[in-house]
Amino acid sequence: MQSNQMKMPLWLDKRAFLTPERMALEENGEKWTWAHLQRGAQELARRLRSAGVLEGDRVALLMENRLQTVAMIHALSYLGAVFVPLNHRLAPPEIAWQLADSEAKLFLFDGSYQEKVEGIEITGTMVVEWSQLKDYPASEGSLKTHIQLHEHHTIMYTSGTTGRPKGVILTYGNHWWSATASMLNLGLHAEDRWLVCTPMFHMSGLSILIRGVIYGMTSVIHQRFEPQKVIHSIHHDKISMVSVVSAMVSQMISDPSFQGVPDHFRCMLLGGGPAPRPLLEKCRERSIPVFQTYGMTETASQIVTLSPEDSLRKLGSAGKALFPAELRVVDGTREVEPGEEGEIIVRGPNVTEGYWKRSDATEEAIQNGWLRTGDIGRIDEEGYLYVLDRRSDLIISGGENVYPAEIEAALLSHSAVADAGVTGYPDERWGAVAIGFVCLQKGQVVSEEELMNHCKGRLAPYKIPRQIYQVEELPRNAANKLMRRQLIQLLSDSTDEGGSME
Amino acid sequence: MQSNQMKMPLWLDKRAFLTPERMALEENGEKWTWAHLQRGAQELARRLRSAGVLEGDRVALLMENRLQTVAMIHALSYLGAVFVPLNHRLAPPEIAWQLADSEAKLFLFDGSYQEKVEGIEITGTMVVEWSQLKDYPASEGSLKTHIQLHEHHTIMYTSGTTGRPKGVILTYGNHWWSATASMLNLGLHAEDRWLVCTPMFHMSGLSILIRGVIYGMTSVIHQRFEPQKVIHSIHHDKISMVSVVSAMVSQMISDPSFQGVPDHFRCMLLGGGPAPRPLLEKCRERSIPVFQTYGMTETASQIVTLSPEDSLRKLGSAGKALFPAELRVVDGTREVEPGEEGEIIVRGPNVTEGYWKRSDATEEAIQNGWLRTGDIGRIDEEGYLYVLDRRSDLIISGGENVYPAEIEAALLSHSAVADAGVTGYPDERWGAVAIGFVCLQKGQVVSEEELMNHCKGRLAPYKIPRQIYQVEELPRNAANKLMRRQLIQLLSDSTDEGGSME
Repeated sequence: MQSNQMKMPLWLDKRAFLTPERMALEENGEKWTWAHLQRGAQELARRLRSAGVLEGDRVALLMENRLQTVAMIHALSYLGAVFVPLNHRLAPPEIAWQLADSEAKLFLFDGSYQEKVEGIEITGTMVVEWSQLKDYPASEGSLKTHIQLHEHHTIMYTSGTTGRPKGVILTYGNHWWSATASMLNLGLHAEDRWLVCTPMFHMSGLSILIRGVIYGMTSVIHQRFEPQKVIHSIHHDKISMVSVVSAMVSQMISDPSFQGVPDHFRCMLLGGGPAPRPLLEKCRERSIPVFQTYGMTETASQIVTLSPEDSLRKLGSAGKALFPAELRVVDGTREVEPGEEGEIIVRGPNVTEGYWKRSDATEEAIQNGWLRTGDIGRIDEEGYLYVLDRRSDLIISGGENVYPAEIEAALLSHSAVADAGVTGYPDERWGAVAIGFVCLQKGQVVSEEELMNHCKGRLAPYKIPRQIYQVEELPRNAANKLMRRQLIQLLSDSTDEGGSME
Repeated sequence: MQSNQMKMPLWLDKRAFLTPERMALEENGEKWTWAHLQRGAQELARRLRSAGVLEGDRVALLMENRLQTVAMIHALSYLGAVFVPLNHRLAPPEIAWQLADSEAKLFLFDGSYQEKVEGIEITGTMVVEWSQLKDYPASEGSLKTHIQLHEHHTIMYTSGTTGRPKGVILTYGNHWWSATASMLNLGLHAEDRWLVCTPMFHMSGLSILIRGVIYGMTSVIHQRFEPQKVIHSIHHDKISMVSVVSAMVSQMISDPSFQGVPDHFRCMLLGGGPAPRPLLEKCRERSIPVFQTYGMTETASQIVTLSPEDSLRKLGSAGKALFPAELRVVDGTREVEPGEEGEIIVRGPNVTEGYWKRSDATEEAIQNGWLRTGDIGRIDEEGYLYVLDRRSDLIISGGENVYPAEIEAALLSHSAVADAGVTGYPDERWGAVAIGFVCLQKGQVVSEEELMNHCKGRLAPYKIPRQIYQVEELPRNAANKLMRRQLIQLLSDSTDEGGSME
């Protein structure tokens, strides 16, 4: 939490001035230069102003990963309005809650979500379907020409371990420092092109667009993640960077069309939680330049990322805190010894100033500028972070800490397993035990006993799942992140269908 | 002039932590990693503390372009002391003045300057020859671990159009924003290596070292500019970037050993005043990637630089203001039309907060955050800056700024001189040299040689006029202001009369 009273030219204006003819965005063969994007965003801003949007207003967007969505995000900057991205997987009551909590002046949605929007009970927010916006005239008058780094850019909702989602406030400064910190680690090449195949309503996708305008880099947009399409795009669209989570990498490299990555591809930025070691090893064998990273909405994406020279040597680590940021692992207020587990806390100019209208949660989470992440990790002798698990996922079994990610990695190392998820299950004797869920590779058959034996060779006895269920699909959110707390619901489904694998 | 209350890890600590084994510096085959540089700088810091240096103290350095100088610059950061770089070409009285004005606590010099130092009358500053520093024990106790962007890093002296040189205050933030702004324009490659063949006591050299520690990039150090050595180094040391002034480029490309630049070489950053168009054309013919830039001490190096896509198309332009910065050309307070000439003014987080102990000069130079450069330029229809002339009076000789007022003052201090005027004269090797014109006191006779010798005791060698002409009267306007640009006309008159004073 740092103040940053600094004024600079509005980012899209500056970028379009510096490199008007350079390509800003591409989607399915459609290409927009920075000058084109600027014109589009300015026109949208003028229409939004006619619709009543003023400086400081929150504007919620329920939109797909499209060129137009990027223009809309920039349009909000021209008015000084704050962007409230909405996850399209949310249920109508959840969207209603975020609109109300953010006190959104306007709710803009894509026509494809018409049915969902009809189910939302909205009060106090104007609702406009995207294509209706053209009915509002483009207003005259000047648009903003400068931003201040302390001004709010985004309020992005994130769920905690308990209670309602909280709106994370991200300033222009948070985004700026995140983008430049990433550049100091990963470098910046004139020919860089970053693939956006994670949602723009999550930090993963949004942060690429922010880097794009600051770096003058092309973002290539996919509406959603499809492994074959991504593989094709990496080659065909000369993609040099892509942001992914483990499950996406896993799907890509097991896809028959995957034949390795081309020379121009230089970074697979792997976030969204600890990655299974077998997957990282498979990537190394295939010479895929994977950079594990650790970050969250509260840090405006990455805060800890492996450096190029360590990506092979430090397999499994998320790296070190980026240049302007800091990282500690603590037990209460005590900084733990190298190798010892504790809670990860972080500090830096990319860290949020707090949660929207939630001073209680803010004070609890941020102390002396340090954000308590609630995640568990350890730092090795050389200072590299290993994220063990997100705290909420932690299973405490007979007093021992059991981390689902570790067990999932063991299951995934079996050749028949395509995907795996592990969660805790109440147990009279141990408090909780781990139970596992697996999706098998097409055409493969394997018994629960065999998987148990496979784990036994790899894990301490208390970590072996009590049961392993075979399922069709694991619950993942829009960013393809495994939702471990929803695994328990599969249990009842699976049980109805006849129990575990045997 | 922007405030920037931001804390971050001390740069060298962070860099040595992130990439300890990466190469920081190379000089004549000697190589230092970041970890090595850190150890060296920390040890120096501990000895400097024993010598009495405390947080906030100014420490003046008169040292060559060497590995050890870089360690010393970083050592000052560990103590929170402010770096006052001294130009080794300055005459003893000039150095004495800068030591006194900066109220330097300590003056450290390299043994090779022993003779010069003996000629300096020093009061109130402790003087230590570099190698004596080892006699001070390395003190115990902790060193600084963090810096704040608003803290002072450097006070670098620069001469104005009139009067004594002024100490430009540069904060950590000024240097940080300069380094990141440059990166956003020129990119950052893992294999980048920047050649330091301009002095570290100037922004040109110092800014490379600052970029080095922030980027994690290797600086290859040459003690001085020697065309053949630079040409060899670009090939042999895999140099990708070099900072130069026109005179250096000119010498390099006319050297018989010059056979073009290799593929890994990607940027010749050309500053120090408007470049002659024929030189730029020669570079283009030879496929040398030249990026013209415009900057000054007050902007912590570059503030306007050509972008990669424009370096060929916009030959002769210095480009556009870097991402966080702004540029205008004005006539008084009015912004002029495209194509019209005016004074260049600039704003941005890399711009100095002002001159050391010179609130008058600061207020005159910086208004509403805009720095009046005094330089003349125009901006074309597309927004590209063409620098027409540096501060009407400024002579740029081999990359060094030479201010006529200072030389005139030296000439006037001779008892026989009644009036004096100095201006620049084109020179193939140096770009320009100073030439002087004097009116003698009635009845006085003095030789050119005597005046030269008089100057030599008072001025750095590069400031000594190449020729001194005796004239009847100097061109002055109605307000009696010396019209320096008309001096050159006297030259032809004078030549008609039979040349210079001899």
